[in-house]
Amino acid sequence: MLKSDLLSLLKQVASGQKSISEACTEISLQPYETLSHGLKIDHQRGLRTGIGEAIFGQGKNLLQLETAITALATKKKPALATKVSKEHGHKLAKKFAGSKYFDLPRIFILGKEIELDEPWPEEGDLLIISAGGADLSIALEAYATAKFLDLNVGLISDVGVAGLHRVVSFMPQINQAKILIVVAGMEGALPSVLGGLTDKPIIGVPTSVGYGTNFNGLAPMLAMLNSCTPGLAIVNIDNGFGAACLAKKIIKNQ
Amino acid sequence: MLKSDLLSLLKQVASGQKSISEACTEISLQPYETLSHGLKIDHQRGLRTGIGEAIFGQGKNLLQLETAITALATKKKPALATKVSKEHGHKLAKKFAGSKYFDLPRIFILGKEIELDEPWPEEGDLLIISAGGADLSIALEAYATAKFLDLNVGLISDVGVAGLHRVVSFMPQINQAKILIVVAGMEGALPSVLGGLTDKPIIGVPTSVGYGTNFNGLAPMLAMLNSCTPGLAIVNIDNGFGAACLAKKIIKNQ
Amino acid sequence: MLKSDLLSLLKQVASGQKSISEACTEISLQPYETLSHGLKIDHQRGLRTGIGEAIFGQGKNLLQLETAITALATKKKPALATKVSKEHGHKLAKKFAGSKYFDLPRIFILGKEIELDEPWPEEGDLLIISAGGADLSIALEAYATAKFLDLNVGLISDVGVAGLHRVVSFMPQINQAKILIVVAGMEGALPSVLGGLTDKPIIGVPTSVGYGTNFNGLAPMLAMLNSCTPGLAIVNIDNGFGAACLAKKIIKNQ
Amino acid sequence: MLKSDLLSLLKQVASGQKSISEACTEISLQPYETLSHGLKIDHQRGLRTGIGEAIFGQGKNLLQLETAITALATKKKPALATKVSKEHGHKLAKKFAGSKYFDLPRIFILGKEIELDEPWPEEGDLLIISAGGADLSIALEAYATAKFLDLNVGLISDVGVAGLHRVVSFMPQINQAKILIVVAGMEGALPSVLGGLTDKPIIGVPTSVGYGTNFNGLAPMLAMLNSCTPGLAIVNIDNGFGAACLAKKIIKNQ
Amino acid sequence: MLKSDLLSLLKQVASGQKSISEACTEISLQPYETLSHGLKIDHQRGLRTGIGEAIFGQGKNLLQLETAITALATKKKPALATKVSKEHGHKLAKKFAGSKYFDLPRIFILGKEIELDEPWPEEGDLLIISAGGADLSIALEAYATAKFLDLNVGLISDVGVAGLHRVVSFMPQINQAKILIVVAGMEGALPSVLGGLTDKPIIGVPTSVGYGTNFNGLAPMLAMLNSCTPGLAIVNIDNGFGAACLAKKIIKNQ
Amino acid sequence: MLKSDLLSLLKQVASGQKSISEACTEISLQPYETLSHGLKIDHQRGLRTGIGEAIFGQGKNLLQLETAITALATKKKPALATKVSKEHGHKLAKKFAGSKYFDLPRIFILGKEIELDEPWPEEGDLLIISAGGADLSIALEAYATAKFLDLNVGLISDVGVAGLHRVVSFMPQINQAKILIVVAGMEGALPSVLGGLTDKPIIGVPTSVGYGTNFNGLAPMLAMLNSCTPGLAIVNIDNGFGAACLAKKIIKNQ
Amino acid sequence: MLKSDLLSLLKQVASGQKSISEACTEISLQPYETLSHGLKIDHQRGLRTGIGEAIFGQGKNLLQLETAITALATKKKPALATKVSKEHGHKLAKKFAGSKYFDLPRIFILGKEIELDEPWPEEGDLLIISAGGADLSIALEAYATAKFLDLNVGLISDVGVAGLHRVVSFMPQINQAKILIVVAGMEGALPSVLGGLTDKPIIGVPTSVGYGTNFNGLAPMLAMLNSCTPGLAIVNIDNGFGAACLAKKIIKNQ
Amino acid sequence: MLKSDLLSLLKQVASGQKSISEACTEISLQPYETLSHGLKIDHQRGLRTGIGEAIFGQGKNLLQLETAITALATKKKPALATKVSKEHGHKLAKKFAGSKYFDLPRIFILGKEIELDEPWPEEGDLLIISAGGADLSIALEAYATAKFLDLNVGLISDVGVAGLHRVVSFMPQINQAKILIVVAGMEGALPSVLGGLTDKPIIGVPTSVGYGTNFNGLAPMLAMLNSCTPGLAIVNIDNGFGAACLAKKIIKNQ
Repeated sequence: MLKSDLLSLLKQVASGQKSISEACTEISLQPYETLSHGLKIDHQRGLRTGIGEAIFGQGKNLLQLETAITALATKKKPALATKVSKEHGHKLAKKFAGSKYFDLPRIFILGKEIELDEPWPEEGDLLIISAGGADLSIALEAYATAKFLDLNVGLISDVGVAGLHRVVSFMPQINQAKILIVVAGMEGALPSVLGGLTDKPIIGVPTSVGYGTNFNGLAPMLAMLNSCTPGLAIVNIDNGFGAACLAKKIIKNQ
Repeated sequence: MLKSDLLSLLKQVASGQKSISEACTEISLQPYETLSHGLKIDHQRGLRTGIGEAIFGQGKNLLQLETAITALATKKKPALATKVSKEHGHKLAKKFAGSKYFDLPRIFILGKEIELDEPWPEEGDLLIISAGGADLSIALEAYATAKFLDLNVGLISDVGVAGLHRVVSFMPQINQAKILIVVAGMEGALPSVLGGLTDKPIIGVPTSVGYGTNFNGLAPMLAMLNSCTPGLAIVNIDNGFGAACLAKKIIKNQ
Repeated sequence: MLKSDLLSLLKQVASGQKSISEACTEISLQPYETLSHGLKIDHQRGLRTGIGEAIFGQGKNLLQLETAITALATKKKPALATKVSKEHGHKLAKKFAGSKYFDLPRIFILGKEIELDEPWPEEGDLLIISAGGADLSIALEAYATAKFLDLNVGLISDVGVAGLHRVVSFMPQINQAKILIVVAGMEGALPSVLGGLTDKPIIGVPTSVGYGTNFNGLAPMLAMLNSCTPGLAIVNIDNGFGAACLAKKIIKNQ
Repeated sequence: MLKSDLLSLLKQVASGQKSISEACTEISLQPYETLSHGLKIDHQRGLRTGIGEAIFGQGKNLLQLETAITALATKKKPALATKVSKEHGHKLAKKFAGSKYFDLPRIFILGKEIELDEPWPEEGDLLIISAGGADLSIALEAYATAKFLDLNVGLISDVGVAGLHRVVSFMPQINQAKILIVVAGMEGALPSVLGGLTDKPIIGVPTSVGYGTNFNGLAPMLAMLNSCTPGLAIVNIDNGFGAACLAKKIIKNQ
Repeated sequence: MLKSDLLSLLKQVASGQKSISEACTEISLQPYETLSHGLKIDHQRGLRTGIGEAIFGQGKNLLQLETAITALATKKKPALATKVSKEHGHKLAKKFAGSKYFDLPRIFILGKEIELDEPWPEEGDLLIISAGGADLSIALEAYATAKFLDLNVGLISDVGVAGLHRVVSFMPQINQAKILIVVAGMEGALPSVLGGLTDKPIIGVPTSVGYGTNFNGLAPMLAMLNSCTPGLAIVNIDNGFGAACLAKKIIKNQ
Repeated sequence: MLKSDLLSLLKQVASGQKSISEACTEISLQPYETLSHGLKIDHQRGLRTGIGEAIFGQGKNLLQLETAITALATKKKPALATKVSKEHGHKLAKKFAGSKYFDLPRIFILGKEIELDEPWPEEGDLLIISAGGADLSIALEAYATAKFLDLNVGLISDVGVAGLHRVVSFMPQINQAKILIVVAGMEGALPSVLGGLTDKPIIGVPTSVGYGTNFNGLAPMLAMLNSCTPGLAIVNIDNGFGAACLAKKIIKNQ
Repeated sequence: MLKSDLLSLLKQVASGQKSISEACTEISLQPYETLSHGLKIDHQRGLRTGIGEAIFGQGKNLLQLETAITALATKKKPALATKVSKEHGHKLAKKFAGSKYFDLPRIFILGKEIELDEPWPEEGDLLIISAGGADLSIALEAYATAKFLDLNVGLISDVGVAGLHRVVSFMPQINQAKILIVVAGMEGALPSVLGGLTDKPIIGVPTSVGYGTNFNGLAPMLAMLNSCTPGLAIVNIDNGFGAACLAKKIIKNQ
Repeated sequence: MLKSDLLSLLKQVASGQKSISEACTEISLQPYETLSHGLKIDHQRGLRTGIGEAIFGQGKNLLQLETAITALATKKKPALATKVSKEHGHKLAKKFAGSKYFDLPRIFILGKEIELDEPWPEEGDLLIISAGGADLSIALEAYATAKFLDLNVGLISDVGVAGLHRVVSFMPQINQAKILIVVAGMEGALPSVLGGLTDKPIIGVPTSVGYGTNFNGLAPMLAMLNSCTPGLAIVNIDNGFGAACLAKKIIKNQ
């Protein structure tokens, strides 16, 4: 339950739209609910942390995914599941009306209308910038999550340091954003370079794009952690979701 | 040159306090200056990135440190040097009038009055929270940097997860902050736990406190990167300075 | 041969149910037996170590698995095989009457009636606690092993640190257990947090649930090894079986 | 405050030896106390976890160590500090009457009479077994901690697998213990071998004794984690203290 | 060309069985031959190193394997290819008359009658000892190579340290060997233990049998490298072939 | 746009073959072009860096590959895509007339006639030397790239250090080259050995050929980086493309 | 003996300046000479590889250093020793007339007049570019070696990516060089960025400047190996010497 | 007790030189003896393994070293201690008459006359070959141990692959040895190269000589483990002692 949900609930009570006993039941729900298949769902996470419970899809079997989504759907909450395999994703999209599975970012969304098609806006409070074309799936994971969290978000793709003029041509948009998510694999130099060009805070997302000594994203991760330009922090490799959540927390807390 | 410096300069011109030619000279300074001992100083970094040039003290010899500090001092800019060895720090403090070296955080500051003594305020726009007593040196590096950057900053020390009631007793202060820096060595669980209790954005700083499989901070770093609570990003191991710079960028950009 | 088997055998001799020569043969069996396909089976491991010989299924081919199981079955001993692939498991379950293969924990059991269906008891001398829904397969490996070893065992699932109130609501059950097995992937913080809340000994089982810098379970493993709360030891990543064996040894030796 | 302390306090109240108001004050102490130098001390950790607050000496400066010890001493609690440098240890021993610093295990103890001199008893509820002579410092850390925690403890040193007959000659003592702590560096094979010979639970402590590919204890740690004999769990490299704490929790909970 | 081949050739010349010009041609062959598909074959490796050119099958495509084997076959030399995939192996066995592919050790042999079926002799100048049943494929790679190199070789399987009496029961055979190859995965303790029991030189072969922190054979490799019993050296993980070649060199050089 | 393209364009203008307005349009093209599917293509990379934009095929989906190739084809530029999967490669070869996909080096080329068939020339300004037969795919990646970049290139395969006479027999060709690319997996010793025999600069390409402690190319990479013969630098593991590009830059800049 | 030495010797013979027997002796010197203290010196390395024998100072004791230098001095060859400790360096400089030890690059040179003082030329056939002030010692190691090898060399210091305008202001000098050595620690992004701006070949030298996850130079090394701009190869961490040797080989071979 | 000691003892009994009761006492000595300071000495290790108990000096304090040496001295056994620090070594040499400490190999020997001075014999049953001058300390550790074990041993130093002709000039001596120990740091290529030139078995000893990506000997270790020439096994980094012990076992067992 998000604080805003709570507020609107109380307003409904005040205005008589909702009976006191109904409101009481809704609020007094146990803070978590025990589902089948070894799952518990934390219905007040949104209230506490500003981000409702999302479903981490990797390692969960289909029954667990269905159970978790059903539990959210029953409460009329929108559901977001990340790192969902193509096989699971398409089955879920068939089963749940009003849901959608996106192949590239491997995201499943229920109960919220979200579009990921090009052209993407190239400006926003949150601006997602990705270094290479192969980083697009993770950039879109961040983009989809940001839309799910109602952020004003833009996406600029394929502006890595091999051709600096590309990213430089977007400096006006960058300087109008409140926060940047910079997604990069290979050598991961883009966040460092951007950190020297703008005063915007940067959340770096290293990706596992590369081969050999890239070590599945270790190389760009280390590069970002050792950046000589301060004002940069990172999330886990390939964690576009987490970066968007942090952006949400930053924007709503200032 | 910070934007505010530029503004005040232009105002002085408008009001006749400064001649056009003087102003012209000041602005038209080369964006960087070549010093001796292989150093260049970037006088417009503050203008571009919101954070003036700080001096990374590790690996620089005494001559280089003196040269860099002198260059900033000559421009009447305050100077901050981090990771300065005790031996270098005390020599610098003697040489530069109006400067101070802090042993625990290994920080040298010139041209700005900063106090790090206890008791520290336990609230602020930026709240620094450290898990263990041995993490204090890095927590103070962040704290000193934040003060240098004119942030409203507080510091709560030694509230690790071995005794959860300690950190829980500070939830009111935590929920009034705009952003948290959480400093933790050992297993680095504090940021994860806090991330489940509050909606504030968290910058994690893993420290090298520990032994054996701590691997000089790798253990807490990995823990923070794999946090199951979204809304958490990290900087390099022991990088209190970088965390404070990011906090500055976040607060001034929202 | 377990000590209890030896005792009951001797009692049968004393009471005349079994002839001396029969007993002699049974006891004087070679301590190990050479099977085909490069296997030897250690029939007195139970006598020495309190845990009979279990079959490590990974890396063994179907012929080896069948050979080992047959050897145990011939002696009328119950058989437990862990880390058995789905393909092998279902073939074995067909071949051996009175056997069962469990998909999720990848365990094969012959000669003992064991149920793993929900709802699981949430209390017991041994209490298994898992952090996330995706850790369930390893938690069930521990649970099935504990049942195979005749322990009084409970299982509480999906109570990770992102929502502390979940695990806190189980403190009464936790404080009535003799020993805890705590299964966690991602950042692996649950054992540390629990170690600060209870005086029960904890066996941590890091799991390979996660991605990126999780490094297949390295992150939670390091977190558990560096816990700031003493009274916690760990087994190999994903080793639910080993944790249950240790619990058995602890409970029977005190 | 340990449960036994609470009990004896209540008995004193019941028998009139202590006034209700005195008892009230003692119990109602804040669960933690804020000291100077960034420290908080958790006076009810013993009550919650069965092990009172111990001081992790590594990375703390002398002022912090003195502050923490004084806080415990003031409450008339015995104090244990581990991983204390020789330099700090001898200064502390001078400062605090009734205290002692032990060079080899780098342990400081105040308020409890403990002897670590040879010959050590070679039997006990807890039996500590070390593989090589160079592992002695960590074995003694475990031994001293166990004595501090009032365990009935023995210590057998230098019985590594290069000469199996050494450890085999102690099988009677081993089989009378309730739990074993096995300390080993180099290849760390002793816990595996012992695990095949006895039904006692084993806590392995890998040590950093060795060179080259020993990687400061990584080699024995991996060996112990991959043991083919179940019933073995490990603590951090060189963590004799943690192993003894776990033994305490196991023995008192059964 | 092996030295013995050269000798017998010269004898044939001396006895008139072979004409001088024929012998001349045979000896004067270029020391290597350029094949198609980017291969060169080194026909005098046997002469120089005592071990003829073997084919490393991994990473070679089918055309390359056929080309290399044909080149050896044309010279009437027996051919040994290791690490050959099942798919390639069975195709090669069909194509080359008088050849055989062994699934378990993934070895292809042409031009030499070799049997790998049980029961294996349990004694020999070279004695191969494997710790677990799952190590059999690598033990057989060593065994097959040894037979190919005409060594008097035995194989004892599944005598790991979890049941020490198994290996101890073979001490007579072990003490009659000239050299031991000890194959072990998991914690890799068997070579250390054997090194303390016998004066025979030991070649350790760590295998990738295990999971989690086994790290594909790193754990047993480190254990063997850090053995506290001297007289033990190792080859690459899963390199049964290399161990047998070294045994051959040792036996023929003494 | 390569400098030579620019020159020839200007010559066409000077000679009246091309109108000023046409030339103007061609030159004034945006330095990059935004394609669909999150791609931007950098049309002046060749002008700046001497190497036109190549397409890194790994991690890109088929739509992205087609989009990028089409963009280059439209400008009548030849296209080179590396690390293209067999599945994608054959689809692309069908779709684009005048294109070719090479299975072994996994390279796609459009708009340039290139042959990779044996026999390869064994001399050239650039001489590519590979250690083993299994390294051929990476050696061919370098060879194909060099041909694409119009270098005079030769290729000598399978001359590793196990038979030094093989590489030594090519010393005349080696000493006539301007630069060497040395491709080696396993222990990666060939570049070191060659570095002691010739005064030619060497670019080492470690390959992932090997198993066990080869760690997917880490072993040869470390060997090359630690070479005791100076005059050797390396590119990423399996990066035959990058090595050829560097050779191009070296040859054209001297 | 360098080829030029051989030529001039032969000319002296032709002109009668040197007797045939003297020349004979000089040329017929054994290609290496056995010194005391376990050293051999390779007098014809220069002839073979274009770079005379240099002395790797690390790990050699003072006697070994003196022996090696004396052997070169006796032949009237200039001597270069790298990675010489300050303690050894100053002793050597005292002992050998006409020698010099440079503290910052830890280099000892005998028999050649070399100056490393500022200001350094900022252009040359070889241009050395360093990212940060703390990288200066390694940049000077490369610079001194290049001067020793008679290269036309320049050095530009402290132009890292945090302030891109610094390096951009040197593009004219960069574009007039034949080859670049780029020295960078921290995140090591400078070579990637430069690789996108110029067509000059680049030799990257990662340095161990940094802390935490820099892992003593691993972070910049991985960044350089994974550069998205081709035309970049690297030498070992901190290996300024090797980079200069490669530059020498490149320049003299084109 | 070595087998030869036992034999000579029995002969003395047979000849009446020693009484039966004396012999009985000597033989019936406990197989190990418990010393002070946590040490046990294994007096029959020589009898079992062919190598008497040596003392691993690293990590032992002075009291432990003195105790262990005294125990051996009392039995009139010669004593060998390896990895003894310079500080400890010189104190021990003063304390024990007839003992000697060697600085370079850090070895202490008592009760046996051993000389390590140059010139070393360059042939022997065991031939030790080292790649670089800085590897000498480890080569001498092997050499001293071999002399202590009464092997016929030679030592050839500084013949690394940068100048192949050096090692090639020793092929006659190499081909007369029974076994080779090859000591190499840096890239560790010498054992591979030698393995292609001779049929002698090779024990590789990687050393920690090098810097940067040498990772304290990891680079040469991996190179040796991945050698493309079979017939090569390795011991731990810097373990010259272990290599000599293995050579002893090989030579005496054939």
